[in-house]
Amino acid sequence: MSFDLNLRVYWEDTDAGGIVFSANYLKFFERARTEWLRHLGVQQHELRQQTGGMFVVSATEVKYLRPAVLDDMLRVTARLTQAGRASLVIAQQAWLGDELLCEGQIRIGWVHAQRLQAERIPAIILERLT
Amino acid sequence: MSFDLNLRVYWEDTDAGGIVFSANYLKFFERARTEWLRHLGVQQHELRQQTGGMFVVSATEVKYLRPAVLDDMLRVTARLTQAGRASLVIAQQAWLGDELLCEGQIRIGWVHAQRLQAERIPAIILERLT
Amino acid sequence: MSFDLNLRVYWEDTDAGGIVFSANYLKFFERARTEWLRHLGVQQHELRQQTGGMFVVSATEVKYLRPAVLDDMLRVTARLTQAGRASLVIAQQAWLGDELLCEGQIRIGWVHAQRLQAERIPAIILERLT
Amino acid sequence: MSFDLNLRVYWEDTDAGGIVFSANYLKFFERARTEWLRHLGVQQHELRQQTGGMFVVSATEVKYLRPAVLDDMLRVTARLTQAGRASLVIAQQAWLGDELLCEGQIRIGWVHAQRLQAERIPAIILERLT
Repeated sequence: MSFDLNLRVYWEDTDAGGIVFSANYLKFFERARTEWLRHLGVQQHELRQQTGGMFVVSATEVKYLRPAVLDDMLRVTARLTQAGRASLVIAQQAWLGDELLCEGQIRIGWVHAQRLQAERIPAIILERLT
Repeated sequence: MSFDLNLRVYWEDTDAGGIVFSANYLKFFERARTEWLRHLGVQQHELRQQTGGMFVVSATEVKYLRPAVLDDMLRVTARLTQAGRASLVIAQQAWLGDELLCEGQIRIGWVHAQRLQAERIPAIILERLT
Repeated sequence: MSFDLNLRVYWEDTDAGGIVFSANYLKFFERARTEWLRHLGVQQHELRQQTGGMFVVSATEVKYLRPAVLDDMLRVTARLTQAGRASLVIAQQAWLGDELLCEGQIRIGWVHAQRLQAERIPAIILERLT
Repeated sequence: MSFDLNLRVYWEDTDAGGIVFSANYLKFFERARTEWLRHLGVQQHELRQQTGGMFVVSATEVKYLRPAVLDDMLRVTARLTQAGRASLVIAQQAWLGDELLCEGQIRIGWVHAQRLQAERIPAIILERLT
């Protein structure tokens, strides 16, 4: 079961190589994770005010296969592949039509927003993920 | 009396036009304001923890005269032109050698960091500015 | 006659002040201009390959009235207010519901993409604008 | 043999979590690679005009250990760990004092700047790397 977000490549996303700057795929992946969580009923801004915690990225592995360019409409996916007590792993891909441009594994952990220390993911989130 | 910051143009700063993306000059100007404040003894992160307030940008006027490209070493200036009780105006320029590339006026105001409402700039900052 | 683009505020758009970083409204405005041009049948990537030219920003004036935060869904507008031979002025606003957060005037000029010198806007574009 | 770049964390680098946004470490790593290449006599903008080629990122693996915050002065390192005919692997780290905040492996490949197809890294670069 995979979640999809369509997004456009704008000038801000490109670099002088004429292609999307590599770091920006991490932004695209983050947008898709955010919309996937929202789709499951998890609003991050609200949740932080309620629980005092937030997700942070703890590890990323990304392969860049083909470049995207200005005006491309990408389909960015998010699929949960591991759910632990304190962290999740999400497999993500960026597609242009039926061409896979970029794929990665993103590990996110739950932390206390002030102390920034690892904590258990709130039950209300874990329930919605499974 | 003007403060100068030298900074390099990296891939992240450019766009598919082969030049620095227009929004990024606001980042360059912000870096120069930050280093100018630091030079005066004002550390923004520390100050927020002490006073609960922070500067936010309230207005910008920028003219883009000539483009900067990858690898350019720019000199970015900051010069205080108005100091009110609640806001400052800083004139800023980006130079490549003796060519002026970009210039603007940036108005920043002091706000309560939680309520985000305008407040008087702390006396300790105003003293250091004058 | 105004064009509207809805866009979400993601983590990438915010800063440690907990609000959208000021430079990022210029990105939002650029996205709205791009979609407005696309709506009129002007695809910038394609056009550059056909004409060898592109739009660049030559001046911006922006007022920041109220902050946007994570998860906000903004409505960003673009409205042509001047159309000259070599440049256009577009009035732009960012709204959250019926609250105006940010507004500005953006001047864009047409340049030769290699030489980066000002040129007349291609007739095919001007026709579609009017 | 490792190359070091000192860089400051500015507002633009942070997000509403109060820490450096994860994607931005890829920008920091890219800046350090650029300065490391420059230190070896390789100027990317110039090289592209001479050879018609450029480096692009083909794979990244990053671990985020501890967060950086506004005003931190980071030391970002670059160390060549593999040099093939068409790609290089660079090990990179971001330090705050003697605390390791973030580390990764970045693979970059050489491509023709127009066709974006993989090519051998020009001899002039490989000589300088070894």
